[in-house]
Amino acid sequence: MSTAAPVVDLNSDLGEGFGAWTLGDDEALLDVVTSANVACGFHAGDASIMRRVCAAAVERGVAIGAQVGYRDLAGFGRRAMAMEPRELTDEVLYQLGALDGLARVEGGRVSYLKPHGALYNTIVTDPEQAAAVVEAVCRYDSTLPVLGLPGSEFLRQAVAAGLTVVPEAFADRGYTVDGHLMSRRLPGAVLHDPDAIAARCVRIATEGTVDAHDGSTVPLAVRSICVHGDTAGAVAITQRVRAALLDAGVLVRPFTAAG
Amino acid sequence: MSTAAPVVDLNSDLGEGFGAWTLGDDEALLDVVTSANVACGFHAGDASIMRRVCAAAVERGVAIGAQVGYRDLAGFGRRAMAMEPRELTDEVLYQLGALDGLARVEGGRVSYLKPHGALYNTIVTDPEQAAAVVEAVCRYDSTLPVLGLPGSEFLRQAVAAGLTVVPEAFADRGYTVDGHLMSRRLPGAVLHDPDAIAARCVRIATEGTVDAHDGSTVPLAVRSICVHGDTAGAVAITQRVRAALLDAGVLVRPFTAAG
Amino acid sequence: MSTAAPVVDLNSDLGEGFGAWTLGDDEALLDVVTSANVACGFHAGDASIMRRVCAAAVERGVAIGAQVGYRDLAGFGRRAMAMEPRELTDEVLYQLGALDGLARVEGGRVSYLKPHGALYNTIVTDPEQAAAVVEAVCRYDSTLPVLGLPGSEFLRQAVAAGLTVVPEAFADRGYTVDGHLMSRRLPGAVLHDPDAIAARCVRIATEGTVDAHDGSTVPLAVRSICVHGDTAGAVAITQRVRAALLDAGVLVRPFTAAG
Amino acid sequence: MSTAAPVVDLNSDLGEGFGAWTLGDDEALLDVVTSANVACGFHAGDASIMRRVCAAAVERGVAIGAQVGYRDLAGFGRRAMAMEPRELTDEVLYQLGALDGLARVEGGRVSYLKPHGALYNTIVTDPEQAAAVVEAVCRYDSTLPVLGLPGSEFLRQAVAAGLTVVPEAFADRGYTVDGHLMSRRLPGAVLHDPDAIAARCVRIATEGTVDAHDGSTVPLAVRSICVHGDTAGAVAITQRVRAALLDAGVLVRPFTAAG
Repeated sequence: MSTAAPVVDLNSDLGEGFGAWTLGDDEALLDVVTSANVACGFHAGDASIMRRVCAAAVERGVAIGAQVGYRDLAGFGRRAMAMEPRELTDEVLYQLGALDGLARVEGGRVSYLKPHGALYNTIVTDPEQAAAVVEAVCRYDSTLPVLGLPGSEFLRQAVAAGLTVVPEAFADRGYTVDGHLMSRRLPGAVLHDPDAIAARCVRIATEGTVDAHDGSTVPLAVRSICVHGDTAGAVAITQRVRAALLDAGVLVRPFTAAG
Repeated sequence: MSTAAPVVDLNSDLGEGFGAWTLGDDEALLDVVTSANVACGFHAGDASIMRRVCAAAVERGVAIGAQVGYRDLAGFGRRAMAMEPRELTDEVLYQLGALDGLARVEGGRVSYLKPHGALYNTIVTDPEQAAAVVEAVCRYDSTLPVLGLPGSEFLRQAVAAGLTVVPEAFADRGYTVDGHLMSRRLPGAVLHDPDAIAARCVRIATEGTVDAHDGSTVPLAVRSICVHGDTAGAVAITQRVRAALLDAGVLVRPFTAAG
Repeated sequence: MSTAAPVVDLNSDLGEGFGAWTLGDDEALLDVVTSANVACGFHAGDASIMRRVCAAAVERGVAIGAQVGYRDLAGFGRRAMAMEPRELTDEVLYQLGALDGLARVEGGRVSYLKPHGALYNTIVTDPEQAAAVVEAVCRYDSTLPVLGLPGSEFLRQAVAAGLTVVPEAFADRGYTVDGHLMSRRLPGAVLHDPDAIAARCVRIATEGTVDAHDGSTVPLAVRSICVHGDTAGAVAITQRVRAALLDAGVLVRPFTAAG
Repeated sequence: MSTAAPVVDLNSDLGEGFGAWTLGDDEALLDVVTSANVACGFHAGDASIMRRVCAAAVERGVAIGAQVGYRDLAGFGRRAMAMEPRELTDEVLYQLGALDGLARVEGGRVSYLKPHGALYNTIVTDPEQAAAVVEAVCRYDSTLPVLGLPGSEFLRQAVAAGLTVVPEAFADRGYTVDGHLMSRRLPGAVLHDPDAIAARCVRIATEGTVDAHDGSTVPLAVRSICVHGDTAGAVAITQRVRAALLDAGVLVRPFTAAG
């Protein structure tokens, strides 16, 4: 048949423990996702965790991405920081290099970048910090795709700089009629029903649409869906999502791969 | 004439500030040395300092080395830590990758490794930690030379692993009749007279010998001399050393270069 | 009746999370133990966790102790560090003051000190670091008891300095015929059977003896027993221990209380 | 005579080194100022530095204040952080307790609080973070004065909470006709001439006025003047300021003292 099967990537935050502390079930999640956003040691992750996750990702053919964040272990990178752009560029480069070194030792390499937490949110709108992250990727390796929020300042600037951008959807977040994420303060902002989440992911992958909170259908063109794995329940939901996608004939593949 | 001129490298610790804190005059020192041991953020150094030092080193043709250390900002990496070897290997890899990324952005690259402070001292004798550092270099890039103390367990293991080793002398330290460094607790352990220091460096480079504390002449075959730059006086001494070497017809060059 | 009931304290490490990371079930454990060794932010714990644990401890009449450790978040304070004694004294004072401030805000106060992890182990034998910790307690408040290993250099020096010392037993560790802890490398070094652990704790509290690994009975005079709570199973075991002690007529009380 | 002599306090940031890194000449400055804002380890300072500064302050009768800041060693506390108020309250309490413990060991105590850097600036206008700092002081010791910017949200809330507030002037900053600090981006925002700075300080102390950048005279009622000491030149200027105040008959005294 001439019509290509729909393709989607499942990305998730991984390697977010630190020292004696663990967070999420990295091994279980790596069996389900196709792209691993690996924390690089500034807001979570340490050298041994990073290396272990890279080894496990390479083993499974999961793409390794640099989950870069603010230098804020105590706040898990969830607190916005008013940083000088140049300093932010340098810290992103540092994180990229550190992860890449560990990935290469395990036979992989950093193949994309995704900002974490408060940095992710800040560069949805902040042009200076967005430019700082884009600058880091351009300097480090301008062929690296960046994963981010559709319509964000970050992706706009990345496109303008000639980078490959990969817009993502969130499996368990409510959407407004404009295709934006609902504020977490509103009811319905976070979905909890595994079937509803799985069905939504299938719609996104096969039709490129999502049901907004008012029931209307909104276009949402993404190449990747972000899933969570920081609780046992979250892993189960992600397994459910993957199974539903496969059942619907969707190819679940890293966006870094051809196709 | 058929006899090749003697060649020596001058290496020094650089980029040892952190955030708002500075230590030493990196710019002045980079005009004098040929190899820069750049701190990688675990015991000193941050991303912006590392990048700035790399840029300045590349500009001057100074070789960039990874000055790796224990994760101990409060102790400047001067406190021995009982680490698991695997963990140490991973942290050395992390530091190597981080510096390499920043160096490459500035047109350079990490071209050797030198352990810092308590790690340097620990692996003079500790076989497990020595093996952990050697393992990191072998995994990262087995063509990278390592700089260390002649006769140390570290260099022994590095040789056994097939790495290129570069033994170093210390410009301002007293030596025993066995060619070892004198304990810092003994009188004469540290030299302060610029002329004496310069003369010693010339002897090391041209004759391969050093005067021990008892006046006897001891063989000391090294390809690099470590100089200090953390005070204004130290920079002046280093400038004096370099001038004396050049006056004596010694070629002052990175050991990473041919020749 | 003329015979006083036996009394024992149950102490446990608490507040060992950091930022987004949790470790153990503090609330559950506080319902069981009588003394809480609260991590002070250097190897684990942060200000909010410390305050929360203090509040919960005060509510339940659980004594608050300063669980002081090396400045080593990445290693959870489990890596020995070669620190200058003066520096160690200062860091112990810093931790004591920080926890005391938070405890007082919640209506409590630091009422004893117990070193953590590698520091605990180091000062079993190292006289300089032991002296440094003793010095800190003497300077901070010489009425504070210290909790430690029977026969340790730390407790010896604490006694010599006039401090109140509280030797402790470990609920789940094997003992040698000399009354020392068995090396963790040996079989039988860690007990797993809840009934055996509970029976042992009752023997310790009522008879002042423990069965050594060879079956012989060894005297063990302690006022406190250390229990673990970092896993769900560990909490259950601790509950079992407490119930067994109460059943045997033992008063389970902080050593800081009269009696 | 019936007229009381004017009184003023000179406060300065102190103890801002960390580990091997130094910043400013604490000893020289302690001979000149009357109140020492001692960094508490979150943005600068470590336990040994804190203790040393406290000892030197006690020796000279200089008041010890807690210079509390964001947890940001890499940024020296100069980067605004979007913190939860409760978390900020807890971190301020932690810093207060830590410094107080070290101060008491040296025969002193924390006798006021002054926020540092980005925290100082943030709570000039941010009501939530201002409330969080006020809450910490109220909980820790509601008799502690707080030092801050006249007209700031922080001092407004502190007054409302019943705290003693001490407004401060800056010796070397330009003022607008409204009595506000000039933006650092404008010419004239920072004064460099020692005589002009000294004369201004005398006017502030004796007349309660300052010359604005347009030459007009503006009322400025403060009980303390902030001076800098992070460079050799800065110490000299501060010495000049103190001498000029004494020459003018001004009593230079901590605000924590009677009078």
